[in-house]
Amino acid sequence: MMFEPFWKKMSDKYNATIGGGDLMSYFSDGNNVCWFLEPELGAAIRRLHGVVGNAVTDDRYIVVGTGSSQLFQALLYAFTTPGGPEPVSVVSSAPYYSSYAEVAGFLRSELYKWEGDAYKFNKKGAYIEVVNSPNNPDGTLREAVVMNRTGNGNGKLIYDFAYYWPQFTAITGAADYDNMLFTISKCTGHAGSRIGWALVKDKDIAKKMTEYITISSIGVSKESQFRAAKIIEVVCNGSQNVVGSVKSESFFEYGRKILSKRWQKLRETIQNSEYLILPKYPQEHCLFSGKLAETLSAYAWLESKDDTKDCNEFLRGLKIVGQSGKICGAHQRFARVNLMCREEEFNQFIERLSATRGKGIINGH
Amino acid sequence: MMFEPFWKKMSDKYNATIGGGDLMSYFSDGNNVCWFLEPELGAAIRRLHGVVGNAVTDDRYIVVGTGSSQLFQALLYAFTTPGGPEPVSVVSSAPYYSSYAEVAGFLRSELYKWEGDAYKFNKKGAYIEVVNSPNNPDGTLREAVVMNRTGNGNGKLIYDFAYYWPQFTAITGAADYDNMLFTISKCTGHAGSRIGWALVKDKDIAKKMTEYITISSIGVSKESQFRAAKIIEVVCNGSQNVVGSVKSESFFEYGRKILSKRWQKLRETIQNSEYLILPKYPQEHCLFSGKLAETLSAYAWLESKDDTKDCNEFLRGLKIVGQSGKICGAHQRFARVNLMCREEEFNQFIERLSATRGKGIINGH
Repeated sequence: MMFEPFWKKMSDKYNATIGGGDLMSYFSDGNNVCWFLEPELGAAIRRLHGVVGNAVTDDRYIVVGTGSSQLFQALLYAFTTPGGPEPVSVVSSAPYYSSYAEVAGFLRSELYKWEGDAYKFNKKGAYIEVVNSPNNPDGTLREAVVMNRTGNGNGKLIYDFAYYWPQFTAITGAADYDNMLFTISKCTGHAGSRIGWALVKDKDIAKKMTEYITISSIGVSKESQFRAAKIIEVVCNGSQNVVGSVKSESFFEYGRKILSKRWQKLRETIQNSEYLILPKYPQEHCLFSGKLAETLSAYAWLESKDDTKDCNEFLRGLKIVGQSGKICGAHQRFARVNLMCREEEFNQFIERLSATRGKGIINGH
Repeated sequence: MMFEPFWKKMSDKYNATIGGGDLMSYFSDGNNVCWFLEPELGAAIRRLHGVVGNAVTDDRYIVVGTGSSQLFQALLYAFTTPGGPEPVSVVSSAPYYSSYAEVAGFLRSELYKWEGDAYKFNKKGAYIEVVNSPNNPDGTLREAVVMNRTGNGNGKLIYDFAYYWPQFTAITGAADYDNMLFTISKCTGHAGSRIGWALVKDKDIAKKMTEYITISSIGVSKESQFRAAKIIEVVCNGSQNVVGSVKSESFFEYGRKILSKRWQKLRETIQNSEYLILPKYPQEHCLFSGKLAETLSAYAWLESKDDTKDCNEFLRGLKIVGQSGKICGAHQRFARVNLMCREEEFNQFIERLSATRGKGIINGH
């Protein structure tokens, strides 16, 4: 909701209008591997990565999904084969996005199995490692770890680049991995649209992902795809200074400015805290903006100075809604707070956090 | 695509326009069990069932899904518990919708397992029976069978009412089951929207379905929900003769007229066929139209007169795309052909079918 004011302001310049008889079919393009991808959205996605420079789209298939969660599941399905000796292990370095664990585990599939922290994984067999960079929840820049740690070469890699956009971090190059996930909910803030996409090198993987999405939901909302294509067009035009769009309309600049202000306020509030600390992030040269850019994580990854304390319990005492580090495979002295909320919610968060100063720790924490 | 001309004609009367800053959040209504259901869509669904009289919505929770496929999976999840002694059996009377088998089986879940034809199911344990009425593929009106056949009272029932709408069959009463599925793709023809809904009696089941959809896709496209609400409004206004909508705008009448013409042509073509027969359907009094109404199935369920023949192979010889009865748990002398296609495709189907008369059977069939 952090980006809502930008889009509210843009609303009169751009509306997505859909007639009663439009977009009625299951099919978008029968000649494409991903037959339910609207061609306009495919083109917009390629243009966006070209403009931002964060990922290679040449020689890549685009698979659209109902959010990137569905695409993550589609990749688990694509990487595994019924009748294997045992479920393929799914891992990610802790602290990891808790949804990976939920999604990989909730149906008790015999195809794959969540095995937690990639740093603790020591099995010999096939595995799938998810690399989320910048990482939810802790904002760190990540690389795959299992192969380097254990020499196990039977891994498939999924790069979740939900936050690899200029508002969150420096764009240091065009990512060129085989399986990369993106989502409009983090890129432009349109979480309600449930649109994610995968850039996939191998045709058979793209086919099997398409099969997964066909079985699980017979494709992806055409209305959301139509609107996502329009939104991406607005973002690209603003970034490229296309005639008719003025400099102030650059979405990524707007996003970075807001996040930057929030992080400044947050660091000011935390720096005098007796109880909490925040991680530091690197500054790197951003090829998109041409400036030095620090990572501005979408989440505050808070740590109790006293490592016997439960950070999320402490936050709850302040009426701050967070997620315990435990859920992310980390220690309970950590907790995650979402910073992508509406302005008034963010201000309330800062206010409640400030209340700890001088007040003493609450109720045993 | 059969209903497209109706909606194309309606396009200027009704457009769904979405501003850049609208529908951005994951959340629609935090107070509702199904927190991602747009309140306007919920209201439209209740109104629609009231207008048509095909289902009870009082004391029912509405859960919205990315098509009814996702809701079917959500029900399988809601009806099962991790750690059970063995996967819960999922069955449906043959011939059944092939997607049930795919969906229940594709992830090799330990929670549930596809066991095929409900008429052949004889296990003692827990089971889930799907009742699809009118039935895809064969157009019959269905009731649950396992309990009556075997006395096994450990069953949970899912009523898939995708085709229980006035264009397809007589509305003989408001269905009042605990778990009922509907989809806009069959009701109005907007398959591209991927909007289905469940009417659910038990709050805990509705909660667990919501949990399933949260984990698998973090909700359902807001754009599709927004548009579906508009479309349903148009259908209701047309059916109720709301001021400003004229009689000719009744969608269900339009739908029935088209299907009725198609079935007439199809029966005329088949009646002289040396090779194929079609099922007969009952006529019943329709409470919605106030007239006698025969079931007009969305599919032709064709049967080879020679029961050693493979019906789908025979159709393939005529360049007709069908689905083998085998995939639906039936004999290969049956095959299903979709009748809800565009007018020109339907005419081509009839033309190719007519070519068999006098020509002799093709290539060994």
